[in-house]
This record gives sequence, C-alpha cells and structure tokens, in this order.
Amino acid sequence: MDTQLFLNAGADRRLKRGHLWIYSNEVDTKRQPLKGIEPGSQCEILDSRGKSLGWAFINPAQLICGRLVSRQQKLDTDLLRLRLEQALALRERYFSQPSYRMVYGDSDRLPGLVVDRFGDYLVVQVSNWGMEQLLDQIVEILKELVQPLGILLRNDHQGRAMEDMPLVNEEVYGTVPDMVPFEENGVALLAPVHAGQKTGWFYDHRENRAMLNRWVGGKRVLDLFSYAGGWGVQALAHGAASATCVDASGQALDWCRANAEHNNLGDRLATERGKAVDVLKAMVGAGEKFDVVVLDPPAFIKRRKDHRAGYSAYRHINELAMRLLADNGLLVSASCSMHLAGEELMECVRGAARQLGLNAAVIHSGYQGADHPVHPAIPETRYLKAHFAHLAPSGS
Amino acid sequence: MDTQLFLNAGADRRLKRGHLWIYSNEVDTKRQPLKGIEPGSQCEILDSRGKSLGWAFINPAQLICGRLVSRQQKLDTDLLRLRLEQALALRERYFSQPSYRMVYGDSDRLPGLVVDRFGDYLVVQVSNWGMEQLLDQIVEILKELVQPLGILLRNDHQGRAMEDMPLVNEEVYGTVPDMVPFEENGVALLAPVHAGQKTGWFYDHRENRAMLNRWVGGKRVLDLFSYAGGWGVQALAHGAASATCVDASGQALDWCRANAEHNNLGDRLATERGKAVDVLKAMVGAGEKFDVVVLDPPAFIKRRKDHRAGYSAYRHINELAMRLLADNGLLVSASCSMHLAGEELMECVRGAARQLGLNAAVIHSGYQGADHPVHPAIPETRYLKAHFAHLAPSGS
Repeated sequence: MDTQLFLNAGADRRLKRGHLWIYSNEVDTKRQPLKGIEPGSQCEILDSRGKSLGWAFINPAQLICGRLVSRQQKLDTDLLRLRLEQALALRERYFSQPSYRMVYGDSDRLPGLVVDRFGDYLVVQVSNWGMEQLLDQIVEILKELVQPLGILLRNDHQGRAMEDMPLVNEEVYGTVPDMVPFEENGVALLAPVHAGQKTGWFYDHRENRAMLNRWVGGKRVLDLFSYAGGWGVQALAHGAASATCVDASGQALDWCRANAEHNNLGDRLATERGKAVDVLKAMVGAGEKFDVVVLDPPAFIKRRKDHRAGYSAYRHINELAMRLLADNGLLVSASCSMHLAGEELMECVRGAARQLGLNAAVIHSGYQGADHPVHPAIPETRYLKAHFAHLAPSGS
Repeated sequence: MDTQLFLNAGADRRLKRGHLWIYSNEVDTKRQPLKGIEPGSQCEILDSRGKSLGWAFINPAQLICGRLVSRQQKLDTDLLRLRLEQALALRERYFSQPSYRMVYGDSDRLPGLVVDRFGDYLVVQVSNWGMEQLLDQIVEILKELVQPLGILLRNDHQGRAMEDMPLVNEEVYGTVPDMVPFEENGVALLAPVHAGQKTGWFYDHRENRAMLNRWVGGKRVLDLFSYAGGWGVQALAHGAASATCVDASGQALDWCRANAEHNNLGDRLATERGKAVDVLKAMVGAGEKFDVVVLDPPAFIKRRKDHRAGYSAYRHINELAMRLLADNGLLVSASCSMHLAGEELMECVRGAARQLGLNAAVIHSGYQGADHPVHPAIPETRYLKAHFAHLAPSGS
C-alpha cells in the first residue's frame, strides 16, 4: 500500500484554499515519518482527521516537501495527458502563433514542469524528482500533441543541483538547432536554446515588450541586462532610432546582434559589454542620455533573507538608470523577484525620482503574459512586474 | 500676508515622500487654526520647525483639508498653463488619437481637476474649491492649447455636493453635441457627455478592453453593468458572435444600441434591462451560457468602512458571473474601488472558482491606461484593476 502522510491540525488550510504546496513542518511526522520516503514518490495527503486532500510528489529533503498533483488520484499517464492537453488548449485559445510557454508548472497543475514552445521545437525543464520519473511519458505525450521536430531537455539549471538532481542538457527527441526561430509581437527572432539562459528565451515579458513597442518610434533605447535582445531588438523592429544592448556576457551580445541582423536592423544596434552598474556609471559620467531605458535585471532577491540587500540593489540601479534619461524619458523598471512586491518596485521608482527631483508618472504596470497564468491560490506563481515611468523635470 | 499652516511634528513625512494630501488632524491648529480659512484658499504649508513644504488648496471643512499644488509657489495662471501643457504633452507622447483623459488630478499635479478629451470636445470636472477659483483660467488655457469646438463643464457629480459646491452641467465654451464621436482601440464610438455618467465615458479601461478584444472572435459575450457598451460593442467590432449588454438604465442600453448601430453591429447586440444581480440569477436559472463574461461594476466600496459589505458583494457577484460561463470560458473581473486591493479581487476570483469546483488560471491582470497615470507616492491614484480568469472544469 502507498504511504499516507497526515498533516498537523490546521495545516490543511492552505491546500483547502487551492494552494498546492506542503511544507515539511506541516506534516505529522510522528504519525508517519517523512524520512525513508523515496524522493519523487507520490503519497496520499490527509488532514489530521484522516480526510484525503489529494496526492502529492514528496521529497523528504526539501522545505517544500510536497507538491499536490491532484485532489483525487495519483498523477498517472492518463492524467498527465489530460493536463498537457488542457495546457496546450489554453495557449491555443489565447495565442495565434505557436510561440509560448506551453506548460507553466503549478499553474497548469504540473508542479516542476516547464515546456517552452518555439514553433516546431520544444524545450523542457524538470525541477523535482516526482516529475523526473514521468519524463519518458511527458516526451511521448508531447510528441503526440505537438508533433515537434525536436525536443530539448534543459535540465542543467541550478534548481536541480539544489535538489541533488543530475544536470543534463540534451536532445531527447529529434534534433534542435542552436538557434531556433520563433515569433514575438510580430518580430521574427532566434532563441539560443542550447547555450542560453534557462530555456533560451524569456517569454514572460512578451506583453510588456508589446506595450513598449508602441512607444519607441524614433527613440534612443537603452536595454540593460539585454540577454539576447528581447527588448532592444524588438524596439528597433518597431522603429526605434537606436538600441544599445548592455550585458556582461559577450555571447549574449552576439545573440543580440544575430537577432538584429535577422531583421536587417544591425546598423541601428550598439552593444556594450560589462556589468550593468559599471556601464551605467560610466555612461552617467560621460553625460549620455536615452529616451527610453529598459531595466530588466535578473532576480536580485533569490531567497527571502536576501530581501534587504536585494531591495537596496533595485533602488540603487533604478536611480542610476533614471540619471540616463533625457527630459520626459521613459523608464521601464522590471523585476522577476518573487520576493519583491510590485508595490516595493514602485517604491524604488518613487524614491529614485524624488532623490533626483523628477516627477514620475507611472503610465503602465505590466505583469506576466497569458502563457504564464497566475494560479489565484498560489501568489508565488505571480513573480514578474514592470512599471513604466515617465520622468519629467519637476519644474515648480 | 497669506496664511501659513504648520504641520504637527512628524506629520510632514508623507509630503516629503511626494504625496500631496494633508489631513486635518495633521495641522497644528493651536499655532494657526484652520477655522476661518476660506475654502479654496491657497496657503503655505510648513513643517513643525518652520521649513516650507509648499503651497496647498485648503478646505477647513474636509478630512483631507489640504492638497499640495506646488513645492515652491502658489498655483497661479503661469504654473497652471505649465501643468496643463505637461499633461497634454504626456498624452501626445503616448497616444496617437486625441481621445483620452487629458488631465487626471493629482497625478498631473492638478488636484481636483479632470479633463476628458473627445477629439474636438473637452469635458471638465472640478472637485474642490481651490480649482474652482481657477476655472476661468483653465477654460482659457484649454482653448489656447487644444482649440476645441466646445467645452462642457460636468460639475454635477456627488463629490461636489459633499464639498457644498454648486452642481452645474453646462457648456462653458462653444457647443457640445449630446453624443460626441471619439475613438477607442480602433473603434468609432459615441460618448453621451451631457447625460451620461461622470464625463460621459470611462477611458480608464481602454487597455483592458484592448486585451479582451484580441480574444472575442466568434465568442458569445456578456457585458454586465454595460453603461454605453464600452466592452460589449468593442467586442462586436472585434468579431464577437454576439454581445448581451445588461444595465439597470434603459438610457444606457439606448447608448449601447447607438454605439452598435454606429458600427453597423446592431444585429449582433442584445440588451437586457435590470439589476445585474437579478439578471444574473435569472440567466443562471434559465441555464444560459456565455464564452466571455465581463463584470465591471460601479465601486461597491466607496468608503473604507464599507469594505466588509462591499467585499462580500464582489465575492457574490463574481460567483454568479462564473456560473454563466461555458467550459473554458473567460471571466473579466474588474473593480474600480480604490479600497479593494488587486489581491482582494483575486481572492474573490479564487474563492468563487473553488466554490464552484473550477480551475482558474488568471491569464492577465490589467490596470489603468496611460492617460490615468499612477503617482508613485499616491497609492490612491491607482484604483482600477481587472483580472482575466480562464475557468476550466477541474477534472481530476
């Protein structure tokens, strides 16, 4: 018989509201120890009175030791197929092009699974032992559903190292080119899926980039932490006078250039290699000015305990970025830190503007696109935010 | 010499962070009583040590007794012109058509002034005595800046009654038709500026409507609290199979029909007069289903003390609306209550979905358009939110 885990009295509340996570200190380990359970096992979860709450992937070594996969049953091949069909149906309902995050973990009731689709190519990431055990079935079902030319497994991210999972970057079906073609906001782009960050592209900012694209005509755009040029190259494609992409990685800047040249926009692209803070300081020193500055850094707050230092870093770099804006310029200030609330990022913008004596008008606040749906019971599924701040001289 | 008002020790903190409001209990009335100050006077505001914080409109009878107009000087005709120029420049920077809120109160550093622009026509609202005294200058400057054909003063809103200000609805320049033509999201529309709610149109949802417009092709749309059909008629123009507009006002439904017919879409429009809750219950009873339901009610929470009752009303009506959705339907759940946080509205969606055994995926959360900019130091300037929830059968 399968192992049953009982929660402590009252610890069922979050799950009953719809959340899917179980913390190790919520399990009644006197009744049934976590120790000895094989990582990735599926166990039935019961409240303290013995009422079933569903089934979960268990990893006894993790703080979040359980992730609910269903209220009624184990995640078997049939349920896996249903969930993947539902995830695909949602994207096909809301997207006209096959370029999107096709599976977004908990929000699609598939904890630990991410699938990004670039037309005929899929990139898969698995981040817990439970999903790892279903990998062969996942690949088979994806082949049936999407008929891809290739599936790349990008299981080389640090989250796996923390779970003691092997790091793997390999094609598990067909072949996948180094740069896969796809489309975002009407612009043809190339994603470096093998060598790039995460799955090769950050689809989550799609709508925020679409909003910016409206407003870049004739403007000088600075794209900080540019990676492969998601913001900068799209801005050029939408009529920006120039885009300057800044990244610490020379390879990322090569990808920017490849994306610009793919759209015959190479002549309006400049690149600058270096740490964003250093480059910003040098540009401030040189008196450079831009009409639009995009500040889309990696997560400065990875864990809750990093909040104070991370917050200061956001505040500091927002002020540096603002110093580079021409009068009546636009700052796009983004954060992908789950631990930084949208209001806190707004506060960084407020504080920086006040410090510099500028009037800030936040003309737009954007979040994740529809392929990264928020699970309303899981606030952690909403991590991305971007405030668009128009900065005017304060005058009187 | 003008009256100077001193704040209590520590009460300057909000202003120093950039906020513009002064509460009556923050004023050191022993040093200088509020009583006797003429409503609408401009007074200099100083901290408890005598350092100047700026100038404010004062109304001694109000809880928010002061509204800062400048850090340096009185709001005179020159500064008024500068502020109006800046407000117009911001809209001209971010909008391609002259259809927008041209002045949005505090966010444009013009407390108590709203100006909505419908091409050649302007609709003006004034909500405090300070701005009232500048009305003649405002009209003159607007004439210079925009060269309108007509300016309508819609000073007949309840906020004025509460400030003991006279209720007025009159043309103060030129003539303004009953229905003024304008454009929103590429659709030609008519706003009932004389007889309609507030200024005649709710521009604030522009971007949320634009987002929905992408997803309505071939769908049956229900538009609750439709007013003049902002959502429903635009959905028809973007390919919806049908739109049913529900409003308690027969006049509002006439305006819906006028807007639909203005676009030759009258044959796909249905209207239903009645209170939304009653109509919803009848539709649920009749087993009606829609692919998209737009729930955009008036503010259920007007004052903080109404929070509990208002929250329950939002929760209840969200559940009713969800019952009308076909499988894999889309609910657009909006609130314009400043006192209802976006997270609270999300919680209404979560609770209703859980109650009905549906899986909710929030594919978009939208806020105010760029013509209603948020002042980052004034959270009260951000009042609008709309969550787009895809509701799927929970399956297993």
